[in-house]
Amino acid sequence: MTTNGTSTAPQTAANDKAARRKRFEDVFPIIANELLGYIRGEGMPKDAVEWYEKNLYHNTPGGKLNRGMSVVDTVEILKGEALTEDEYLKAAILGWCVELLQAYFLVADDMMDASLTRRGQPCWYKMPNVGNIAINDAFMLEAAIYHLLKKHFRSEKYYVDLLELFLETTFQTELGQLIDLLTAPEDHVDLSRFSLEKHHLIVVYKTAFYSFYLPVALAMRMRGIEDEAAYKLALSILIPLGEYFQVQDDYLDCYGLPEHIGKIGTDILDNKCSWNINTALSHATPDQLSVLESNYGRKDPVAESRVKEVFSQEPIALPRRFETYEAESYTKITELIESVDESGGMKRAVFTSFLNKVYKRSK
Amino acid sequence: MTTNGTSTAPQTAANDKAARRKRFEDVFPIIANELLGYIRGEGMPKDAVEWYEKNLYHNTPGGKLNRGMSVVDTVEILKGEALTEDEYLKAAILGWCVELLQAYFLVADDMMDASLTRRGQPCWYKMPNVGNIAINDAFMLEAAIYHLLKKHFRSEKYYVDLLELFLETTFQTELGQLIDLLTAPEDHVDLSRFSLEKHHLIVVYKTAFYSFYLPVALAMRMRGIEDEAAYKLALSILIPLGEYFQVQDDYLDCYGLPEHIGKIGTDILDNKCSWNINTALSHATPDQLSVLESNYGRKDPVAESRVKEVFSQEPIALPRRFETYEAESYTKITELIESVDESGGMKRAVFTSFLNKVYKRSK
Repeated sequence: MTTNGTSTAPQTAANDKAARRKRFEDVFPIIANELLGYIRGEGMPKDAVEWYEKNLYHNTPGGKLNRGMSVVDTVEILKGEALTEDEYLKAAILGWCVELLQAYFLVADDMMDASLTRRGQPCWYKMPNVGNIAINDAFMLEAAIYHLLKKHFRSEKYYVDLLELFLETTFQTELGQLIDLLTAPEDHVDLSRFSLEKHHLIVVYKTAFYSFYLPVALAMRMRGIEDEAAYKLALSILIPLGEYFQVQDDYLDCYGLPEHIGKIGTDILDNKCSWNINTALSHATPDQLSVLESNYGRKDPVAESRVKEVFSQEPIALPRRFETYEAESYTKITELIESVDESGGMKRAVFTSFLNKVYKRSK
Repeated sequence: MTTNGTSTAPQTAANDKAARRKRFEDVFPIIANELLGYIRGEGMPKDAVEWYEKNLYHNTPGGKLNRGMSVVDTVEILKGEALTEDEYLKAAILGWCVELLQAYFLVADDMMDASLTRRGQPCWYKMPNVGNIAINDAFMLEAAIYHLLKKHFRSEKYYVDLLELFLETTFQTELGQLIDLLTAPEDHVDLSRFSLEKHHLIVVYKTAFYSFYLPVALAMRMRGIEDEAAYKLALSILIPLGEYFQVQDDYLDCYGLPEHIGKIGTDILDNKCSWNINTALSHATPDQLSVLESNYGRKDPVAESRVKEVFSQEPIALPRRFETYEAESYTKITELIESVDESGGMKRAVFTSFLNKVYKRSK
């Protein structure tokens, strides 16, 4: 029998997290029905409506939903008290728009990377009869965002700010994807194109803007924050935080436990321009360099294990360097957060909540 | 020696048309430089900037530019006098945004249709080293639109209307593409999916909104027209006009002279859901139906010529039916144009100018 008490606290937290997730997930059918109702109303044939339904459901829910739920969390923190039903719904719709944006990117990225699975199921373009129609399906996931924004936010003063946030973040993410594709084509290994600077650009543009800045900026708009300086400050914290998150992601791909991270890392096999390889390249001895050059990005588990071995050797010693990187990032981001002025409606807790979710995570 | 006089009038008109085209074309490098300047300013590596430049230049200019130039023409007609330099530039930028939207669609359509050439050159995804990167490149053509709108129209009262016009038209066009892909997959012939109703939906959604309504609605916004009824009326004329245009296009694919239309039609070989096949299906005798069913959409010139023969036979008789369709469309659209009330700033000449360009064209 569970009663209150310290021993059940983690259980309660887990229940709370599951309940929050459930509440957020329950909003998805509402927006899917709005979208399907719209195209049905336009006279679209039954097969097209069913196709869009499958596209929406296959590609949008089913992930970790961190990005979408962080919009809701941020609106709550900024308000400082529980949201009304209407506020919750609006925040959750913005959250689902971020998830739709991600769905749009992932459907396309999987085609460009020739990936086979995503979130434990076949990639959308690999589903029966889909193939290259997935390109148009990706477009239609993006289009859903603006349809929902118009439907739910048209009369708000900050409507145009929401449009611009999504549109600009989309461009930034596409720029990140372009640099990534040109720097690390899956079928052609050339480590001379890699550098920590390139890695920084890829991470910031391809991930940090849409995963970290966008959800917070949307929540700030919804809460009526208009001071442009507050957005600049949020950006100056969330971009380094997003970069730290992605470096962790890269590190865990090689050093995380598969049972924690839920997958077996393939960055070395896939010629990824990751923090690991770039840090290794910048500290390798000539002998280590030649091992990396002849083994990185080959679809061969023996080559992969040679690379892993070099990653852990001195003077590369990635685990040690990651520990230092993590400590320094934590200090730097904490200092930035401490400098936040809360008088304009911004709250430090927005950032600490993100940082606490990210710091020393193992999954 | 050419002097003024009736015999040189066509020559003068041609020169005028070429000059108008040249002036419009000269705006493209300006906007390309703005876009490239932006991404350079964001610190993008040289190879990414050069890649985007190639993407923009390969895919945006080089077409007929009818859609883009019709924005400028419409702004001029609505103003009733010559545009200032600044007005011209703004109208031309909106025109180029329509061309960018089309470029975004065409890069993707060519991949989905597995086309090989476009505008006399290889499709973008067929260019060396491009391949599936073209998906992200298509996205970046779309992103260019919103970057340019923000840069040039952010302070205008109608900025949000421009955003919505582009965003909604994009969704409509994608819906049209989806129905087309589901109705007429290139590799699987099933004429039972075809119908004149499907053809109507495909044409209206995939072509008419972005090619006919969008340019005019953008020009109306730029001229400050706010009466929503004026937009409804424009839509009620331009959608039938766009449909008539596409029916012509379908007809000319089979019956136009290659030296006029600048290509050899392949709609029959490609299993296109065209006006021709749908009209034929709805009037065919059982024998004709079986010829169509066993020969349409096969990659075989003999099958193609059998289909063409049936198209011209009674009671199908496409040339006769097209003549009737064309005359009826012209009458209907002319009547709609006559009903336009010019007191709210709208001009009938906007529509007659379109209609005159389209009526009885042979190319």
